[in-house]
Amino acid sequence: MDFTLSEEQAQIVAMVDAFAAERLAPCTGEWDRTAHFPLDVMRGAAALGLAGVFVDPEHGGSGLGRLDGALIFEGLARGCVSTSAFLTIHNMVAGMIDRYGDPEQKARWLPALCAMETVASYCLTEPGSGSDAAALRTTARADGDSGYVLNGAKAFISGAGASNLYAVMCRTGEAGPKGISCLLVEKGTPGMSFGAPERKMGWNSQPTATVSFDDCRVPAENRLGPEGHGFRYAMAGLDGGRINIAACSLGGAAWALEAATAHVKERVAFGKPLSALQAVQFRLADMATALEASRLMTWAAADALDRGDPEATKRSAMAKRFATDACFEIVDEALQLFGGYGYIADYGVEQRLRDLRVHRILEGANDIMRVIISRKLLDAA
Amino acid sequence: MDFTLSEEQAQIVAMVDAFAAERLAPCTGEWDRTAHFPLDVMRGAAALGLAGVFVDPEHGGSGLGRLDGALIFEGLARGCVSTSAFLTIHNMVAGMIDRYGDPEQKARWLPALCAMETVASYCLTEPGSGSDAAALRTTARADGDSGYVLNGAKAFISGAGASNLYAVMCRTGEAGPKGISCLLVEKGTPGMSFGAPERKMGWNSQPTATVSFDDCRVPAENRLGPEGHGFRYAMAGLDGGRINIAACSLGGAAWALEAATAHVKERVAFGKPLSALQAVQFRLADMATALEASRLMTWAAADALDRGDPEATKRSAMAKRFATDACFEIVDEALQLFGGYGYIADYGVEQRLRDLRVHRILEGANDIMRVIISRKLLDAA
Amino acid sequence: MDFTLSEEQAQIVAMVDAFAAERLAPCTGEWDRTAHFPLDVMRGAAALGLAGVFVDPEHGGSGLGRLDGALIFEGLARGCVSTSAFLTIHNMVAGMIDRYGDPEQKARWLPALCAMETVASYCLTEPGSGSDAAALRTTARADGDSGYVLNGAKAFISGAGASNLYAVMCRTGEAGPKGISCLLVEKGTPGMSFGAPERKMGWNSQPTATVSFDDCRVPAENRLGPEGHGFRYAMAGLDGGRINIAACSLGGAAWALEAATAHVKERVAFGKPLSALQAVQFRLADMATALEASRLMTWAAADALDRGDPEATKRSAMAKRFATDACFEIVDEALQLFGGYGYIADYGVEQRLRDLRVHRILEGANDIMRVIISRKLLDAA
Amino acid sequence: MDFTLSEEQAQIVAMVDAFAAERLAPCTGEWDRTAHFPLDVMRGAAALGLAGVFVDPEHGGSGLGRLDGALIFEGLARGCVSTSAFLTIHNMVAGMIDRYGDPEQKARWLPALCAMETVASYCLTEPGSGSDAAALRTTARADGDSGYVLNGAKAFISGAGASNLYAVMCRTGEAGPKGISCLLVEKGTPGMSFGAPERKMGWNSQPTATVSFDDCRVPAENRLGPEGHGFRYAMAGLDGGRINIAACSLGGAAWALEAATAHVKERVAFGKPLSALQAVQFRLADMATALEASRLMTWAAADALDRGDPEATKRSAMAKRFATDACFEIVDEALQLFGGYGYIADYGVEQRLRDLRVHRILEGANDIMRVIISRKLLDAA
Repeated sequence: MDFTLSEEQAQIVAMVDAFAAERLAPCTGEWDRTAHFPLDVMRGAAALGLAGVFVDPEHGGSGLGRLDGALIFEGLARGCVSTSAFLTIHNMVAGMIDRYGDPEQKARWLPALCAMETVASYCLTEPGSGSDAAALRTTARADGDSGYVLNGAKAFISGAGASNLYAVMCRTGEAGPKGISCLLVEKGTPGMSFGAPERKMGWNSQPTATVSFDDCRVPAENRLGPEGHGFRYAMAGLDGGRINIAACSLGGAAWALEAATAHVKERVAFGKPLSALQAVQFRLADMATALEASRLMTWAAADALDRGDPEATKRSAMAKRFATDACFEIVDEALQLFGGYGYIADYGVEQRLRDLRVHRILEGANDIMRVIISRKLLDAA
Repeated sequence: MDFTLSEEQAQIVAMVDAFAAERLAPCTGEWDRTAHFPLDVMRGAAALGLAGVFVDPEHGGSGLGRLDGALIFEGLARGCVSTSAFLTIHNMVAGMIDRYGDPEQKARWLPALCAMETVASYCLTEPGSGSDAAALRTTARADGDSGYVLNGAKAFISGAGASNLYAVMCRTGEAGPKGISCLLVEKGTPGMSFGAPERKMGWNSQPTATVSFDDCRVPAENRLGPEGHGFRYAMAGLDGGRINIAACSLGGAAWALEAATAHVKERVAFGKPLSALQAVQFRLADMATALEASRLMTWAAADALDRGDPEATKRSAMAKRFATDACFEIVDEALQLFGGYGYIADYGVEQRLRDLRVHRILEGANDIMRVIISRKLLDAA
Repeated sequence: MDFTLSEEQAQIVAMVDAFAAERLAPCTGEWDRTAHFPLDVMRGAAALGLAGVFVDPEHGGSGLGRLDGALIFEGLARGCVSTSAFLTIHNMVAGMIDRYGDPEQKARWLPALCAMETVASYCLTEPGSGSDAAALRTTARADGDSGYVLNGAKAFISGAGASNLYAVMCRTGEAGPKGISCLLVEKGTPGMSFGAPERKMGWNSQPTATVSFDDCRVPAENRLGPEGHGFRYAMAGLDGGRINIAACSLGGAAWALEAATAHVKERVAFGKPLSALQAVQFRLADMATALEASRLMTWAAADALDRGDPEATKRSAMAKRFATDACFEIVDEALQLFGGYGYIADYGVEQRLRDLRVHRILEGANDIMRVIISRKLLDAA
Repeated sequence: MDFTLSEEQAQIVAMVDAFAAERLAPCTGEWDRTAHFPLDVMRGAAALGLAGVFVDPEHGGSGLGRLDGALIFEGLARGCVSTSAFLTIHNMVAGMIDRYGDPEQKARWLPALCAMETVASYCLTEPGSGSDAAALRTTARADGDSGYVLNGAKAFISGAGASNLYAVMCRTGEAGPKGISCLLVEKGTPGMSFGAPERKMGWNSQPTATVSFDDCRVPAENRLGPEGHGFRYAMAGLDGGRINIAACSLGGAAWALEAATAHVKERVAFGKPLSALQAVQFRLADMATALEASRLMTWAAADALDRGDPEATKRSAMAKRFATDACFEIVDEALQLFGGYGYIADYGVEQRLRDLRVHRILEGANDIMRVIISRKLLDAA
């Protein structure tokens, strides 16, 4: 076993930290306030290889693994949780095309995705589904040999309206998971439209809206892999997605722990810095401990996924459940340590709390993680 | 012992619930979004006697006790947490004038306060103080016999700019708690100014800002009680203030529990309503149990205060600590039960979470409650 | 509402506290070590009216209510958790006979039960049942008009072998709850036998064993109430039983909090008493707060039961769940505050932890409480 | 990074698991009941190299590292927590002699320690000290050049009376940490005596007692390292000791999780196995997740210690705090899942709860861990 970063990983972390400190952290508050989608800054990240993390270098990607990805998204999330989270989605779609696409599809989309000239969104959830993804009702009716006619709606889509390419899970066949395929739908396709952006608790640097399809024609060459493989792709992507979202929680919590530590050293009450109070010290200790445990869980899951370990799905679910809960609590404690300032937007802590709150819901709510974990445990026992 | 409401209390609760359902609940979301201070609606509450809850009927008040107040503010907070919380502050100032004012002061201010023609704010906290209230540095220099010249600044003042009357704790004498007096400063007094409204996590239906005094002349007849009594008044008000804020948490949590219960009965996943899932059921059970415990703690503290029980301060601190923590967790669980909808502003759950978060900080942060409780325990043992 | 003890209740509390301090507390450690069933001391309690708490004075009882009972059993449990818990069981059986017995049965058994000349046990759980009480398989076959022939076994029976009278739930009819009757079986009845006493984590001052019936003939006049009413009686007894067990937890936790408070004031580390450490102070504060909340929940449930409030079952379940969990945690924290001494038997804290642990399991495990609470919530909503 | 066991480590784990299953698990209950110190079985472990884990092979040891040790002690603790914990102490003393002893001392003691012909105890804590180790008052007065005269008492000594060799921290010089030396005292030295074995909550397969010194003469060649180095050795040993105790908690929790999983699959209530209940499933999931996080924290700390990482002390404190708390909770949940059986000694769960309880206190109580962690955090920030 080895719990240290490789030299290459240390370099990646240093690069990402510098980018986050320079380009994300100074703006995250304003993006939150104004609901700004920072495309230019994300293209800056793309220039560093952070928009095609899992994509083969042949197509412009960085060819990195899940553990590298966890380091990257934690680093970016130290600067801006919401933007880092959006980048994980974009990277997931790029990674799916890299893994499941045919040569033409890869050549057609990957270079622009890796440069973030093309921005990608992922469309699985529907109004009225939620965690029960296999029940989806968006249909893609075959339209001769040339393609599909898409009808239905997708809910809570990150990047809706802003993205150029949408990986849409839709029903091309029977009920249940085996009737689902994945179509890549380009923005501007007639019949595709976007709902008004949702007003959300956080994650405000990325628009969230419904994506609707009304007799929207999608050519057959936009189908990723064979018919009926969509749900498998979606599920295969989930392990990585869970690690990514856990990593975004790590970044938010790490920022909050650092900010709170600085605050309590500086802030004086009853004649002493808050950091002289034992209750404050003990809380910092527990926050740091929980953060370290969250990080190890995330890294161990990412490593399992990189190794193709049969435990990877269970470990990813554990990491997602543990890290997103623990990191939210860390930020909540940080807010408390800030006192009244924690409640004021300018100090940024309350934003992290709002941003991290959704991680406990997304990519399978944490109760779904418990379903997955317990199933594996009981099957194995 | 008797754990039931009196008939009069049951009537008050029914009246307040009706008002909250009709006038507050439908608007709370918009007030949050637009940072609207709903003066007209609060005057509607005043018409029902809810702006002078603790004031003698002789001066237009309702002459009720702390336990009645807890029922009222829970009920109002079911409709709008932030507005109910502002009303507790206004009521606290009115109650202070009723209790400590001379006949002229009572006649001059109480009727308008009870009608909410005059709106009151409370100015204790300073930039750089926080929980260490006795360290305050705003000075009121005697200006002959006729009054005081006030200099300094007060931070995080609810209602700043919107209120007409400000109860300002300031230093008229020595360092420490015994040099503090309470002046009632009217809006418009030269030398008084207001900072920009803070952008906050929640509590958006009331403005929060700094109140500054720059050679602000306040006549001697605006001093509440003798010189040097201010800190005592502030402390005496705190027990009630803590019960009130606990009650506001109860209202927010009660709303969230009801909303979540309705949601899980309606929302279907995997072919059954969410309420058929045992994990969901058990969470509701724990939420309801925690809410009941919070309510009993709040009521028992209010009753102790009404009875002049020497344990009242300890009980108020316990109730505030327990109820504000537990109710926040209830709302957090409710949000989780709502899944993605919980994160969307339209459903209101995330607003309650944002609104309740500050209750753990205000009126003495919850760690200050622990200081108070443990001191009483160790002194008694 | 009124959160104060009546003068009569205050007198009861004082009497019970004195008895517990004098007769129970000095011996509880030895009874635990030697598994001694302190019949003589319990008869001392009976002399004070504590063995027929809920029994009509006409038959030698004290004629008190559930709230009085909660005060009594908390007080006794301050002295010895396990003995107080056994007394709740004895009192429950006496109360059942008082409530459901015919005049002959009352006259025959109640005076001796109230004097604790006769000791009673309660036999519901079976090996292999547990929380699913209605599935019980002990049968009472009618034996002409004269009585029943009892076959089967009851598990985890407190007082087994030591008690003289056993209230046995058995099947006289159809499957399910409606086929269950309650027979009062006297020790010494041929065909009745006792297993070896179980070695347990705690509750050592009362024997726990299996009670077996092998063609055990019980006369018809020993049947409590009509055939088929047994399960109803069992269920009706549960609300009170839950309040009693919650009260026993209160007593154990109150003892532990007092002991820990004294310990940290006395014990010096790094040149100061432990009580000077903020982390210690805050833990005491949280322990005291949780204890107060537990007590209020227990009292409110007892009051609801006394009033015949339709919410009584829900409230009893809430009180049992909340108080038994919270009080266990209080004792666990007390043990931690004692450091190494907490682990040593002589100091008594570890015994309270062992004694209280079973309260989270008994009288319906705490998850069964959640089932009950959530059912009531969802039905009402 | 690499989160997999090496082939050699996998072999060690398999060997230890087999030994624990065969020699420890079947007896742990009886050893607990009868307070038996299983010297013969520990010699069996020694024959596998488990009594000189950290000792150079030159002197009969296994020459392994801290991470290997964590694997070993977790494995042993699956069989018997208390015996594994005693072996960690014995190994710690052997490791100290290996690291700080002179060639004569190593040759004299290590072979017999590695074979467990000689059993070692560690004497730091005193009556009245506890976590404040540097305040120790046992004195070793120089007795000419030939040795020391030892006076004082050591409390809570594991193995007291049973062990042959005692590493005693005593004051040879000034007050404070720099006046402390380490003497190796052999059983049978005149003036050395043992108190009665303490009655404890658990850890019953090892005797715990006071060790007293009354003008006990110890030759100078029994001093480990130079005078004044004792506290440094004690502190240096603590990081490893904390990892070991965390590892023992892992073993107890792993056993409990497996036992509970088997139990809920087998046990039927309301017509279905308990494992069909969602609340049961979710609890297993959370237990398994917490165990995995505990394990990673322990391994990462051990790896840091093996690498001489400057963060090793902080990481060891984090691991100890986290793992001992989390594993206790896992066992507590397991007990709850067992229902009434969990409370009965025969099923073994309650024993693990009793055994693990002390890990939160030993080797620096968990609050001391928080002191260490927060100091490192605040110094670094």
